[in-house]
Amino acid sequence: MLGNFSYSNPTKLYFGENSLDYLSGELAKYGKNVMLVYGCGSIKKSVLYDKIIKNLKDCGKAVFEDGGVMPNPTVEKLNDGCRIAKDNSVDLILAVGGGSVCDYSKAVSVSAYCGDDPWEKYFIRFEEPTCKIIPVGCVLTMVGTGSEMNGGSVITNHAQKLKIGHVFGDEVFPKFSILNPVLTYTLPKYQMVAGIFDIASHIMEQYFSGTDDNTSDYLAEGLFKSLVESSLVAVKEPENYEARSNIMWIATWALNTLIAKGKTTDWEVHMLGQAVGAHTDATHGMTLSAVSLPYYKYILPYGVNKFKRFAINVWGVNPAGKDDKAVALEGLKEMEKWMKKLGVALSLSELGVKAGDIEGIADSTLVMDGGYKILDRAGIVEVLKASL
Amino acid sequence: MLGNFSYSNPTKLYFGENSLDYLSGELAKYGKNVMLVYGCGSIKKSVLYDKIIKNLKDCGKAVFEDGGVMPNPTVEKLNDGCRIAKDNSVDLILAVGGGSVCDYSKAVSVSAYCGDDPWEKYFIRFEEPTCKIIPVGCVLTMVGTGSEMNGGSVITNHAQKLKIGHVFGDEVFPKFSILNPVLTYTLPKYQMVAGIFDIASHIMEQYFSGTDDNTSDYLAEGLFKSLVESSLVAVKEPENYEARSNIMWIATWALNTLIAKGKTTDWEVHMLGQAVGAHTDATHGMTLSAVSLPYYKYILPYGVNKFKRFAINVWGVNPAGKDDKAVALEGLKEMEKWMKKLGVALSLSELGVKAGDIEGIADSTLVMDGGYKILDRAGIVEVLKASL
Repeated sequence: MLGNFSYSNPTKLYFGENSLDYLSGELAKYGKNVMLVYGCGSIKKSVLYDKIIKNLKDCGKAVFEDGGVMPNPTVEKLNDGCRIAKDNSVDLILAVGGGSVCDYSKAVSVSAYCGDDPWEKYFIRFEEPTCKIIPVGCVLTMVGTGSEMNGGSVITNHAQKLKIGHVFGDEVFPKFSILNPVLTYTLPKYQMVAGIFDIASHIMEQYFSGTDDNTSDYLAEGLFKSLVESSLVAVKEPENYEARSNIMWIATWALNTLIAKGKTTDWEVHMLGQAVGAHTDATHGMTLSAVSLPYYKYILPYGVNKFKRFAINVWGVNPAGKDDKAVALEGLKEMEKWMKKLGVALSLSELGVKAGDIEGIADSTLVMDGGYKILDRAGIVEVLKASL
Repeated sequence: MLGNFSYSNPTKLYFGENSLDYLSGELAKYGKNVMLVYGCGSIKKSVLYDKIIKNLKDCGKAVFEDGGVMPNPTVEKLNDGCRIAKDNSVDLILAVGGGSVCDYSKAVSVSAYCGDDPWEKYFIRFEEPTCKIIPVGCVLTMVGTGSEMNGGSVITNHAQKLKIGHVFGDEVFPKFSILNPVLTYTLPKYQMVAGIFDIASHIMEQYFSGTDDNTSDYLAEGLFKSLVESSLVAVKEPENYEARSNIMWIATWALNTLIAKGKTTDWEVHMLGQAVGAHTDATHGMTLSAVSLPYYKYILPYGVNKFKRFAINVWGVNPAGKDDKAVALEGLKEMEKWMKKLGVALSLSELGVKAGDIEGIADSTLVMDGGYKILDRAGIVEVLKASL
């Protein structure tokens, strides 16, 4: 049942092959000082970097570069970024990259002026920002996290072996995001399919919770079916515009709050994946794919109806003559076949995790409400062992 | 394939039984002078009117009432409303009612200061507003049009026998909308099912167009399936909160631009329905239901694949051993069964249209691009005759 909630999403999206044409119009809305944030530097070899720099210069901006954002942005990097933003009185943070770059930029935007230790304030105490927030704009080059249209930000603290996300309110959402599917063509297949599974996981973690079927569940099924269709094209034809553009659009809508409205959610797969990420630095989407099937098999007996619905509505399983649990399990079997076709990690061993790491990962795993079965310590260990 | 587009939807939604609690927070954002717009006056007999007046007074507002908005708001009424708004330097237009009241309020918001004949400027020449726009907020009491989260406004000119909609940009969208499903409980069944079919038509008119299947089509199917499920509950149990809340939410998302993104659309059913409305003043949703099946049967041969997909994905038609057209037609047959269960108008005769009216209605019918078959004059007359 749709409960009480509010909905507001202020991010303006420009989508398509020509979407970068709208950057200068957005830049005109902000002051002179722009912090240009990017990742490992491969962007510097691309024509995109030159185009963006030209855009910024044509708009008369002073550019302060902050490259080297790592796949799992660290608390040390965040502190460095805050210094750059504050020392240069930055008026806009322009994030050019994937989810990590967007996440990091949002973290800087709420941390530069917070007057506190941002890790402690936002990621340990989960407080909301009360300081000046620097506006963020995104030019997306990778797909999966949905960070381009939400308030989420995940930061890793290696010293504490913690990778924690804070979902900020809509004042922290990017002001604009530029989504050009063509920019995603050159991403290595490993990163592409990891991103695709990240999207799938976002949908499932909002879907597999609650006893009432509502409109959000129907929307989630639509997104999932579209993702399955387009992903199977994209792994064979990475430059298929239709497939890549659908995947990009699905990613945005899978995690911009819409499909969670009026229902409970269960983010335990992300908690498990983030714990694995904090210990291994493995690619985010692969940490999710490695633990998903064991997790869902573990909780399935407590939410058979929803898993049955998933099997029928998403995977086209024919329920005739089968009991509910068999139908439900057949859906997960179909999902496993799809995951194999994509080539995502199906075990933690593939990500370098050893049996001896399990207890440490379990220590780092936060337990979330909302699931059909809330994991206890033994449950976490059992799911992680089954994922090895 | 998802083409180039932008997406932005600035409307803030408050949803649920307690959503009116957020009105005073929104009122605080605007100046002293509030124009309170409502319909036939039944609101004055309800506790809602008293609550809103109390809210406005508690916030220190000067209230200028503009009641009597008719189901098909007229150009004469619009001109009156503009005078009220301008003479009182209105800072906010608060629309309390259904789609007509919201549509009318948006028309006033862009017309009060337009310095031109608004009918000619917006509804004949389709120009965009360049004047000051008065902000609009909505408290919804009826469901269907989606007007609470879009820039659409439909105005009727009886002298010219024209009912025309203008879809304005996001600066005209309501700043906020308050959606309380409980307020819709008391609506007569006729109005309720007309609203439900209006929603269905919005979804179909965006779905039945284009040759490429993309994510928008999957989202449309999800909304439609959810609508069928909830509508069948609501006609039997008007006070079923789950059903009414889902219908309210589907209505919003069926026409807030999302499911049209990256695809063509075909609004011919609305053009036919609006022409019927200009001649008969019949309830909007019923004009759509009366012409839909004849229209879709007429264009089906030109878009068999999409109608087949609709039959399978929305209505669960089993395609085994049937040719494509048979599957497609079976989908429309299933839809007809659903329409009968709802009790919507299945013919124009039910709405008082006579054979002699057909040519006049055809004269008032605008022809839209985007359909599988663009209607010529003979086609319009054929569809209208088949709808009698």
